[in-house]
Amino acid sequence: MADSSDFAAGDMHADVRGLRWSPVEKTIARKAFNLALQEELQSVIRETKDRAARIQQRFELWDLEHYLTKRRNEIDRKYDFRYSVIPFVLGGLLQEGRINEDHLRGLREDKLTYIRRAAKGTGRIKTA
Amino acid sequence: MADSSDFAAGDMHADVRGLRWSPVEKTIARKAFNLALQEELQSVIRETKDRAARIQQRFELWDLEHYLTKRRNEIDRKYDFRYSVIPFVLGGLLQEGRINEDHLRGLREDKLTYIRRAAKGTGRIKTA
Repeated sequence: MADSSDFAAGDMHADVRGLRWSPVEKTIARKAFNLALQEELQSVIRETKDRAARIQQRFELWDLEHYLTKRRNEIDRKYDFRYSVIPFVLGGLLQEGRINEDHLRGLREDKLTYIRRAAKGTGRIKTA
Repeated sequence: MADSSDFAAGDMHADVRGLRWSPVEKTIARKAFNLALQEELQSVIRETKDRAARIQQRFELWDLEHYLTKRRNEIDRKYDFRYSVIPFVLGGLLQEGRINEDHLRGLREDKLTYIRRAAKGTGRIKTA
């Protein structure tokens, strides 16, 4: 059932889909996105090496398998670069501290509004 | 459709299910089985550590995940200790060189016949 917050979310999605990105803004968004993705992947690589180095028992093998499946699914879900959702994605990354406002410098206020709203958790919409 | 080889396989399965294992034979079978399983797990652990240590790129993470899933499924399928199938399992391990005839010393001829037949590939029946 649609309630008022669903309507608000619907409006916001429509507004975000309607944003026009300049080539410079696209580059900024892509760069911030890639930076966060690369750092997140590096942290998974580090954790994988650490866990593998410590394995002694059978169950630890399958724990590592489970960890990798979980992280792959999380990363696939989280890193969605479509312009229709990227402000929510960047907002989430800002909230997690994976990027900061400096990485977003050069984006116009129309985008920053949605990004900051998403970072505050008031515009965090499931994008999957 | 059942053909003559299906009948033969059916007979062999029935014969194997009818085998009587002495306590000593059970211990021998269990020991050979565990030895092969432990060695196979150790080789997966070694391979996992090697692969993890070499990871530099994203795809190598998911390759490792895929490798672990594959090996877990193979090991789960292969190491089935039910007495109704253990001669086929031990025959497979003999064929792969994971155990040798010394590990089976003490088993009576009725079991060895099926184990050797399985090892030669003439009695290798899908047990799953």
